[in-house]
Amino acid sequence: MRVVRVAVVGGSGYIGGELLRLLLGHREVDVAAATSTRLAGRRVDSAHPNLRGRTDLTFVAPADLGEYDAVFLATPHTATMGRIRDYLAAAKIVVDLSADFRLHDPESYRRYYGRPHTELGLLGRFVPGLPELHRDRLRTADRVSVPGCMATAAVLALHPLVADDLVAGEIRVDARAGSSGSGAAVGPENTHAERSGALRVFAPLHHRHEAEIGERLGRPVLMTATGVEAVRGVQVLCWTRLADGVDARAIRAAYRRHYAAEPFVRVVAEHRGPHRLPDPKILSGSNFCDVGFVVDEAERTVLAVGALDNLVKGGAGNAVQCLNLRLGLPEDTGLEFPGLHPN
Amino acid sequence: MRVVRVAVVGGSGYIGGELLRLLLGHREVDVAAATSTRLAGRRVDSAHPNLRGRTDLTFVAPADLGEYDAVFLATPHTATMGRIRDYLAAAKIVVDLSADFRLHDPESYRRYYGRPHTELGLLGRFVPGLPELHRDRLRTADRVSVPGCMATAAVLALHPLVADDLVAGEIRVDARAGSSGSGAAVGPENTHAERSGALRVFAPLHHRHEAEIGERLGRPVLMTATGVEAVRGVQVLCWTRLADGVDARAIRAAYRRHYAAEPFVRVVAEHRGPHRLPDPKILSGSNFCDVGFVVDEAERTVLAVGALDNLVKGGAGNAVQCLNLRLGLPEDTGLEFPGLHPN
Amino acid sequence: MRVVRVAVVGGSGYIGGELLRLLLGHREVDVAAATSTRLAGRRVDSAHPNLRGRTDLTFVAPADLGEYDAVFLATPHTATMGRIRDYLAAAKIVVDLSADFRLHDPESYRRYYGRPHTELGLLGRFVPGLPELHRDRLRTADRVSVPGCMATAAVLALHPLVADDLVAGEIRVDARAGSSGSGAAVGPENTHAERSGALRVFAPLHHRHEAEIGERLGRPVLMTATGVEAVRGVQVLCWTRLADGVDARAIRAAYRRHYAAEPFVRVVAEHRGPHRLPDPKILSGSNFCDVGFVVDEAERTVLAVGALDNLVKGGAGNAVQCLNLRLGLPEDTGLEFPGLHPN
Amino acid sequence: MRVVRVAVVGGSGYIGGELLRLLLGHREVDVAAATSTRLAGRRVDSAHPNLRGRTDLTFVAPADLGEYDAVFLATPHTATMGRIRDYLAAAKIVVDLSADFRLHDPESYRRYYGRPHTELGLLGRFVPGLPELHRDRLRTADRVSVPGCMATAAVLALHPLVADDLVAGEIRVDARAGSSGSGAAVGPENTHAERSGALRVFAPLHHRHEAEIGERLGRPVLMTATGVEAVRGVQVLCWTRLADGVDARAIRAAYRRHYAAEPFVRVVAEHRGPHRLPDPKILSGSNFCDVGFVVDEAERTVLAVGALDNLVKGGAGNAVQCLNLRLGLPEDTGLEFPGLHPN
Repeated sequence: MRVVRVAVVGGSGYIGGELLRLLLGHREVDVAAATSTRLAGRRVDSAHPNLRGRTDLTFVAPADLGEYDAVFLATPHTATMGRIRDYLAAAKIVVDLSADFRLHDPESYRRYYGRPHTELGLLGRFVPGLPELHRDRLRTADRVSVPGCMATAAVLALHPLVADDLVAGEIRVDARAGSSGSGAAVGPENTHAERSGALRVFAPLHHRHEAEIGERLGRPVLMTATGVEAVRGVQVLCWTRLADGVDARAIRAAYRRHYAAEPFVRVVAEHRGPHRLPDPKILSGSNFCDVGFVVDEAERTVLAVGALDNLVKGGAGNAVQCLNLRLGLPEDTGLEFPGLHPN
Repeated sequence: MRVVRVAVVGGSGYIGGELLRLLLGHREVDVAAATSTRLAGRRVDSAHPNLRGRTDLTFVAPADLGEYDAVFLATPHTATMGRIRDYLAAAKIVVDLSADFRLHDPESYRRYYGRPHTELGLLGRFVPGLPELHRDRLRTADRVSVPGCMATAAVLALHPLVADDLVAGEIRVDARAGSSGSGAAVGPENTHAERSGALRVFAPLHHRHEAEIGERLGRPVLMTATGVEAVRGVQVLCWTRLADGVDARAIRAAYRRHYAAEPFVRVVAEHRGPHRLPDPKILSGSNFCDVGFVVDEAERTVLAVGALDNLVKGGAGNAVQCLNLRLGLPEDTGLEFPGLHPN
Repeated sequence: MRVVRVAVVGGSGYIGGELLRLLLGHREVDVAAATSTRLAGRRVDSAHPNLRGRTDLTFVAPADLGEYDAVFLATPHTATMGRIRDYLAAAKIVVDLSADFRLHDPESYRRYYGRPHTELGLLGRFVPGLPELHRDRLRTADRVSVPGCMATAAVLALHPLVADDLVAGEIRVDARAGSSGSGAAVGPENTHAERSGALRVFAPLHHRHEAEIGERLGRPVLMTATGVEAVRGVQVLCWTRLADGVDARAIRAAYRRHYAAEPFVRVVAEHRGPHRLPDPKILSGSNFCDVGFVVDEAERTVLAVGALDNLVKGGAGNAVQCLNLRLGLPEDTGLEFPGLHPN
Repeated sequence: MRVVRVAVVGGSGYIGGELLRLLLGHREVDVAAATSTRLAGRRVDSAHPNLRGRTDLTFVAPADLGEYDAVFLATPHTATMGRIRDYLAAAKIVVDLSADFRLHDPESYRRYYGRPHTELGLLGRFVPGLPELHRDRLRTADRVSVPGCMATAAVLALHPLVADDLVAGEIRVDARAGSSGSGAAVGPENTHAERSGALRVFAPLHHRHEAEIGERLGRPVLMTATGVEAVRGVQVLCWTRLADGVDARAIRAAYRRHYAAEPFVRVVAEHRGPHRLPDPKILSGSNFCDVGFVVDEAERTVLAVGALDNLVKGGAGNAVQCLNLRLGLPEDTGLEFPGLHPN
């Protein structure tokens, strides 16, 4: 197979950098361009020092975007839709990592992102970039919209429960997130002195990812989000109730059945030990989403837990997995790194 | 008033050390003894290096405990009850910081601590060491049982809601805790390399503090606990539903009414900013418990948040506050430190 | 004694906040005003959430500065000198925490701060705010210039060695500093994601504090500085060589002699254990500077170590200690907090 | 080429786990066995949860060691030499990661490791596992002794200066190390509460790695080591003086010349920015050793800086690089991961 020429639009941010790390190490891909408005003309490794020795690329201005086999959009929410026609013209395959084409309901977009969507004709035309739920469609999808990091963790943690009708009633999602989820943005709340060691409940009721989770699962959820001391990592705790007649054995069976063949979802639900349930601590850099659960039959309650690296399975890694699917490559091509322990 | 002679039993652990820090700086108190089985004969500041220059005390063996005006028990759960007769003989005022006399229901003790209680006659004879709920009784109490750190945070966060019948239905408590809550215990799961940066769901459904919270509030709760990256600090997020007819204004009024006169409970419920809700990051060393809330009237839901330093308001500071009450001193004597920002 | 009315100029930064924390808890002081250009009209506790419940002050604009018994200047380097005449008019006692009056040599100021000094007549008219070296002068000093945080640590660590002529040859100072030393400044290098866990050699050869250290000790030093993972805290390692005939016993005796009576310098030089040498981990919030040393007689070398909280003994606490001296108060008034362990 | 069968002796520790991570991802290697005395019979991923989904291996007892093409020894210092005959019998190629065969001088071993060496006949028969200095010998070496983590960082940082006679006089090495360097050992000084945020000068003068550095460079050094807040990572700062006639240009040329062709040494010596000098923050999981330098011609001084991940280039990764060399494979086989930013 010939090498695939790709470009990363918005290559200087954290998601852009992670895409570059993964794509530069991908044996079937040639990174032909990375754009940055701010850093055009400067070396890619000036923004991403981990790539020193791995590339001599320099950033180009967005206006200099050429034609490629695929482009990845690591551009800001609400800005992507304004340029989407250009991006669609630049490549047959477009993988969008912004939020602009995640929601299919324009009213929902307006509510959660604070402005009307300007490309209504394209809404719903991007396949959700979640191989575990949409693998078949992704094999032929030219337009992919990768979900948000917390949404991916929550959807994968809850999917077996909801898809198999094992739970009933309200679903509460308690998300904890590292600081890189804010991107490389600079602000007084985001300095090391202010953010270090914080337990900052930044979205006490209603985080915008709850709309995505609701659309993907077909069930509303209530979501709270707290910033915790970490650079990378998302963990979600999801509480809900067992449906009538459901027991712990059925829950376990559902997780096994849904995920036994998944290359990047591991079921972690042990009875003891520090690693009995998913923890993002050991997932930095890897494309795994670990999911687990605990059932209390007497209380008729279940806790589902999901964890991932927000920049990898929660963003760039998931995007590369989608590209692999689309290209007919093994899904884990370029995504072999398993994470570190200890870390 | 004459100086009060006190002893700290179990002075080498973290709660013991914090008691010593506070009591050595307390102008009405003379620390007459600190016991330690393991460190008898060694200087107190060899275990607590922050006290260098503040004391020349050496630890004595528990068998050398004399008579005092008050003793504080910073002894392990399940071991305290076996020695309680000795302690009651050593001082008129006994403030227990272990779990052994927190629960009044012996069956509950057996279930959560794994063994039968051996001093049934004393169960229920200790006044809960929570000034905000039991101030009047504490003014004359000779036996005080200080609640667990997460229990104190959850009870104070939820108390206005429950006492005023503002909420209905299930209460879920999601607790996050720093590593010092495990005490100075040494184990493979507790090393820096293993614990650093972890999001460890160590009590996924049912933490033992839920029994205490239930007894204090008169309402059952379901509790989950996660170890987070911090040495000190507890934060609880508590979800429940608004009772019929209750709105956000009523919730706010209840918190103000219950806590306006409290010296160590601050209502933190702002609309924006990194400090809009309680965060233990700024509470290390202080005796404050910050509580806050967010109401969604449309969803009929309320999130209550509590935060404290587990070794201070969650233990030693709360114990000193109880002693102050018992002695008729200003409640904040020796507890003036407000915490640091940034930290 | 009547209460002393003080103002803090530049009250919204980290040093300003720490001054406010200490002065609000100081029983002989009344905090009459805190200025902030940016936050004039807003509550002091909006910038310093640890002071909630401790003050209802609001910031005033610098132009509204009145007259006080003492003013503390927590204003930026190079900006202070331009306003110094106003400040000197506002109070008899002026304690400057900026760098503008630390150096007595104008050429040195120009080299390290990048511009000529504009108040040459006042240079050298401020007494260095280091009680351990200048106690007698500080008892009557109306103008005090508090040294930089790393300078204080290094001068106190080295002073017994240099003052008693115990060492010879070059002195190398290796400083490690937490992120709060950069102040509340916002910048792309200072975000949590970038700064967390860093070992950033930001001043590889020649940090500006080396000029201060040289002036105070009367000996040049070579200084390197690294940002480490901490919010508060400075540690300096200082290597030099034993002078002829000097042995370890003489070194130990010198430290004891110089610091035995000091309220805020502790000699920490044990033979084993995790706390054998000074570590800022246990000093957050306290006014201690711990100093220690290790001697290798065979190699004729000595390592001196100093540690402190950069915002307290490295700034605000040291300033309050100077005020106490000037007012004839016990030096530790308002500075009683000993620091936390663990932390 | 046929796949190489390897075994890891001491597979349950941190170095053992890192060897397993790298070797399981190495396309030319088959991991045939991992031994552990403590965990024999248990799954490898019970000790190394990052390897879930990557291996179904279980640990075997050391006594069950069979025959392999290569064995890696991740066994404790002073214990390795007692079993070395067994290990040499188990495979033609033996790569030792303990300290037992690093030093060639038995007297030095006795001094730094506290006991006499018991295999004097084998001392000096292991080739130092440092490809940058000993590549040719390693191509045919059946016995390799991988250097200590801090030694590797210091030797690589200093090698161009010493090999080209560019510096003169004493060399001081200031090492900073994360907690994983202590291995998975459990002790009261090593708990999260005690170790978190510490700046612990655990080897104030004379760390045992100074003997290795001295042997490799042919020049004595004086070494200090401090534990810093990190799980992984070593950074060394090395101060020395320029030899007569040497200027900054000569220094830069030497680094370029020595390392231009090295796959895992990057010269990082920029003039500004947060990444101007080597920082282990961006090296976790990678096999890079970044080296840099700053020269002050006026002071005739040079600072050399080195950084690496102590478990990778400071241990397991270096060992795999040596195996690749010995097998005639590209040196970076299985070592492609570049590290993360941010992290």
